[in-house]
Amino acid sequence: MPDLLLYDFPLSGNCYKVRLLCAMTGIKLTLKNTRVLEGETRTEEFFRLNPMQQIPVLKDGDYVVQDSQAILVYIALKYAPDWIDGTPEGMGTIMEWLSFAAKEVSNGPQMSRLHFLDPHENIDIERAQAVGRKVLALLDRLLTYRDWLCLGRPTIADLAVFPYVGLSEQGQLPLADCPNVLAWLDRIRSLPGYISMPGLKEAL
Amino acid sequence: MPDLLLYDFPLSGNCYKVRLLCAMTGIKLTLKNTRVLEGETRTEEFFRLNPMQQIPVLKDGDYVVQDSQAILVYIALKYAPDWIDGTPEGMGTIMEWLSFAAKEVSNGPQMSRLHFLDPHENIDIERAQAVGRKVLALLDRLLTYRDWLCLGRPTIADLAVFPYVGLSEQGQLPLADCPNVLAWLDRIRSLPGYISMPGLKEAL
Repeated sequence: MPDLLLYDFPLSGNCYKVRLLCAMTGIKLTLKNTRVLEGETRTEEFFRLNPMQQIPVLKDGDYVVQDSQAILVYIALKYAPDWIDGTPEGMGTIMEWLSFAAKEVSNGPQMSRLHFLDPHENIDIERAQAVGRKVLALLDRLLTYRDWLCLGRPTIADLAVFPYVGLSEQGQLPLADCPNVLAWLDRIRSLPGYISMPGLKEAL
Repeated sequence: MPDLLLYDFPLSGNCYKVRLLCAMTGIKLTLKNTRVLEGETRTEEFFRLNPMQQIPVLKDGDYVVQDSQAILVYIALKYAPDWIDGTPEGMGTIMEWLSFAAKEVSNGPQMSRLHFLDPHENIDIERAQAVGRKVLALLDRLLTYRDWLCLGRPTIADLAVFPYVGLSEQGQLPLADCPNVLAWLDRIRSLPGYISMPGLKEAL
């Protein structure tokens, strides 16, 4: 059994992705609370751990990996192969959604939420909400004829996109007009081992 | 020998990444010029090919994959294994840099360039240039003690980051203060099979 160490922050949806994968797959994860608001990631010491000076960071023995999408790929390939597909075709398809999480979901729902959690952040809220509405409408359309984002089963693609879409209403992006997104969020919440995070609604 | 079809646009650094990988590895690539400026990606027909309505898109027989980072992963895993590392540790490390390309490089140098190429784009240029300066300074620091971004050899990580960093000056982000970045750009330009794109400087 692996014993992984996660540099964590309870309100970060990116850290939550990693906690969620480990909870659903029974992987033991030790959490190290990182005092982000007090500047702990902006020290030289943290730079040596992760030059991007961001959380999450995962340590597995001597191996260190940062970036939530990269951490999901590492854990799934190493310890949870049912949650990924290591073939070229499978990795290509999963990567499409990891990029969607890193770009569209981040620039839309994630930035909108950050604005309302911390108005001091220099965020163009009109632009973030415009991207957010587009992302939610697109997801709702794509989820009309599928239960999961790709490969016909739950994968790290779903877990990468889930947190900030689920937290959309904290960014004043209503989900009421997105019935397929709401049903998909509920499907994820119904999976064995599911855990929540602050701000996420419970299953309807 | 594979015969891949790329929905391409000559001025896109994201399409160029794919052309560059194929040129360096001798993989045959058929280019389909996509009239992005005339709205070809915004049609229903293109939506069925790629719901993100972006280029590049790659077709390999019946398999379709979009997003430049996902395409690099697919091609490398399938046809160019020397340019990737499919182990959990290798994929995790390469993914860190693909995320860096999708987030930091995109929000900084890529958006700055887009602003000056097309001032009608709704871009917060001050923010994009601030991110861009941070990205270039960080890259320069990280390249002090390494020749390649990761794994001690050229990989798709380098090719994912290269185009928009190499095009920084089109976004009025000077590279003169980044000697390590300039040396790394030259190392890439010196690799066998290297091809250029419009706006990229030739090797010094």
